[in-house]
Amino acid sequence: MTITAPKGFRAAGVKAGIKASGNPDLALVVNDGPQKSAAAVFTSNRVAAAPVHWSRQVVSDGRVDAVVLNSGGANACTGPQGFQNTHATAEKVAEVLGVSASDVVVCSTGLIGEQLPMDKILPGVDAAFRELSEDGGSAAATAIMTTDSVSKEAVFTGTDAQGKEFTVGGIAKGAGMLAPGLATMLVVLTTDAEVPANELDVVLRDAARVTFDRADSDGCMSTNDTVVLLASGASEALPSAEQLSEAVTSVCAELARKLIGDAEGASHDIAIRTFNAASERDAEIVSRSVARSNLFKAAIFGKDPNWGRVLSAVGTTDAVFEADQLNVAMNGVQICRNGAIGDDRNLVDLEPREVLVEIDLQAGDAEATIWTNDLTHDYVHENSAYSS
Amino acid sequence: MTITAPKGFRAAGVKAGIKASGNPDLALVVNDGPQKSAAAVFTSNRVAAAPVHWSRQVVSDGRVDAVVLNSGGANACTGPQGFQNTHATAEKVAEVLGVSASDVVVCSTGLIGEQLPMDKILPGVDAAFRELSEDGGSAAATAIMTTDSVSKEAVFTGTDAQGKEFTVGGIAKGAGMLAPGLATMLVVLTTDAEVPANELDVVLRDAARVTFDRADSDGCMSTNDTVVLLASGASEALPSAEQLSEAVTSVCAELARKLIGDAEGASHDIAIRTFNAASERDAEIVSRSVARSNLFKAAIFGKDPNWGRVLSAVGTTDAVFEADQLNVAMNGVQICRNGAIGDDRNLVDLEPREVLVEIDLQAGDAEATIWTNDLTHDYVHENSAYSS
Repeated sequence: MTITAPKGFRAAGVKAGIKASGNPDLALVVNDGPQKSAAAVFTSNRVAAAPVHWSRQVVSDGRVDAVVLNSGGANACTGPQGFQNTHATAEKVAEVLGVSASDVVVCSTGLIGEQLPMDKILPGVDAAFRELSEDGGSAAATAIMTTDSVSKEAVFTGTDAQGKEFTVGGIAKGAGMLAPGLATMLVVLTTDAEVPANELDVVLRDAARVTFDRADSDGCMSTNDTVVLLASGASEALPSAEQLSEAVTSVCAELARKLIGDAEGASHDIAIRTFNAASERDAEIVSRSVARSNLFKAAIFGKDPNWGRVLSAVGTTDAVFEADQLNVAMNGVQICRNGAIGDDRNLVDLEPREVLVEIDLQAGDAEATIWTNDLTHDYVHENSAYSS
Repeated sequence: MTITAPKGFRAAGVKAGIKASGNPDLALVVNDGPQKSAAAVFTSNRVAAAPVHWSRQVVSDGRVDAVVLNSGGANACTGPQGFQNTHATAEKVAEVLGVSASDVVVCSTGLIGEQLPMDKILPGVDAAFRELSEDGGSAAATAIMTTDSVSKEAVFTGTDAQGKEFTVGGIAKGAGMLAPGLATMLVVLTTDAEVPANELDVVLRDAARVTFDRADSDGCMSTNDTVVLLASGASEALPSAEQLSEAVTSVCAELARKLIGDAEGASHDIAIRTFNAASERDAEIVSRSVARSNLFKAAIFGKDPNWGRVLSAVGTTDAVFEADQLNVAMNGVQICRNGAIGDDRNLVDLEPREVLVEIDLQAGDAEATIWTNDLTHDYVHENSAYSS
């Protein structure tokens, strides 16, 4: 059920002492091959953390031997010293594993603007190395948690044309700051399929575009987002691009769903589906505009089917539609018809955690869904108290 | 101190019974001339309320005799019936005043998606007509309040080249949904200067661009925003465009400041000033990006000078800057220097309601300020309970 489900991988998660809480805070994932191909996508935030700058370089040649991840500190906005600390972490991993530092991806998550305690990180790498095991994936998933209430793992097993099985596994962390071009989200995906790095890259980008990129918890974009996919080739399976894409997208979708389901302080998970749009881009911007409306999100928290706030968010976009042709349904009740009052809003049941908002643009046949959360007292509480 | 301070205007505010609370909910403002020139700006939301569609037409010829405003219902997303109700309201005002309905601006504010109680509105117009007086401006200001905790008024007196005095007065309502291209904001401005409508239009647009458009409480854009400026010419003063612009901008700035100061549930008023930008547009988008970050706004509520959340919001923009040259000060303390850790964050005092965030892009000499609020428990509470 995790990243060590695919053959050819070992992982570990340990307590390095970075977190004041004493919880696990350092993870190591190693690809034992025979293949070492890899791809990754990173935050599009121009204020990117030191480990993002480092790891972009590492992945650029399509080979990765190991990924080291720490929680308890983002190592973002930490200047030259921060970059040196990322480099030193990679060197330490390279030393214990006998690989090149230039093949070690580094990920960090936690508070921005503080230097990492290297006197904890480096011994932590030693400890993680000693703990590496073929069933260490779940320990790694636990060690990357920050405000997550549960660890997130997923797995998918497929079959290639010759009937050989291959597996894709994943772990993820992230509970706030979920947004466009990813979110404070660290994701490690593994597969034992035999896939060249350039093909991994295409498959990963396509999967991220329709999963992580459409999970938009609070519209904020992290400095540290990293999604890395490693292939060991240990199953000797040779899935087609479609077969691999199905497996990777499935794992990414499950992880994205778990991230939204555990978003900080949320009491509702909201899917905003826009359909009959002139283009997929139109459908996406309309759904995202609603997902970013604090007024709409607060209304859902209050179990108030306030479709006026949906329409006012739709009206700020440049998508193709006529205001007097918009239809909105909430949990199956058509509360807005042709831009005006539809069925009785009191028929909408917002007691369940799951909410489905459907927006009909009557302008074409494209659609897209954005997943978000409601805006709650607990969101405010957690995010006003996070660094203090 | 209000819209009846300039000569040539009468106003009234009455209890029409639209609001369940029984508070005043209908206002009437009449321009007795001799001049009747006017200009207005409206929401850029494509889902605009019926009164916005109506009033755009009314103002297009530059003449307005009266403005009728109701709280207790937005008349937005109400279909053909909603437009008929706006039309009937204007006709009623025209009838009692003996003017043309096509010279009557109508403004509504309140819940979206419900029809107005016309059996309350029409008698309310009669009542307001009877109450019209040369010191009725404050009563009008009170009648347009929704979740506002105080009414908002401002006045500015200037002098033309011949030494003749002229006055600009204003009233405003709005306490949430403040955003780009205005906000659920109804503003009536009056002046007794003699100004043709085309000049009023230029002056009003320029003033709104740097005042109301830069008040961004929660990033949400209303369906009903209207700012209307009426000139009576009753003072016979002939201010230059610059003199009038100074007066109108001053009144708009004071009203915008009062709107932010009374934003729903806010505990801090935050000015985000970006300077040394390559262009005013860059400075504005950087400040606005920070103003829209829920994580930043929640941190300020928690009195946490979390400059990492400022930088991560700056990093999502396409403004000209280098990440390692960004400086951020909060209430005068330089907590981020060259994109990394600056002075001790514990030196920042976030106890006062007023917060000043200064972002130095080191990329030019332009600047802009956006005014916003923190994200609080009370914001969530008020906006989750609003329509229920």
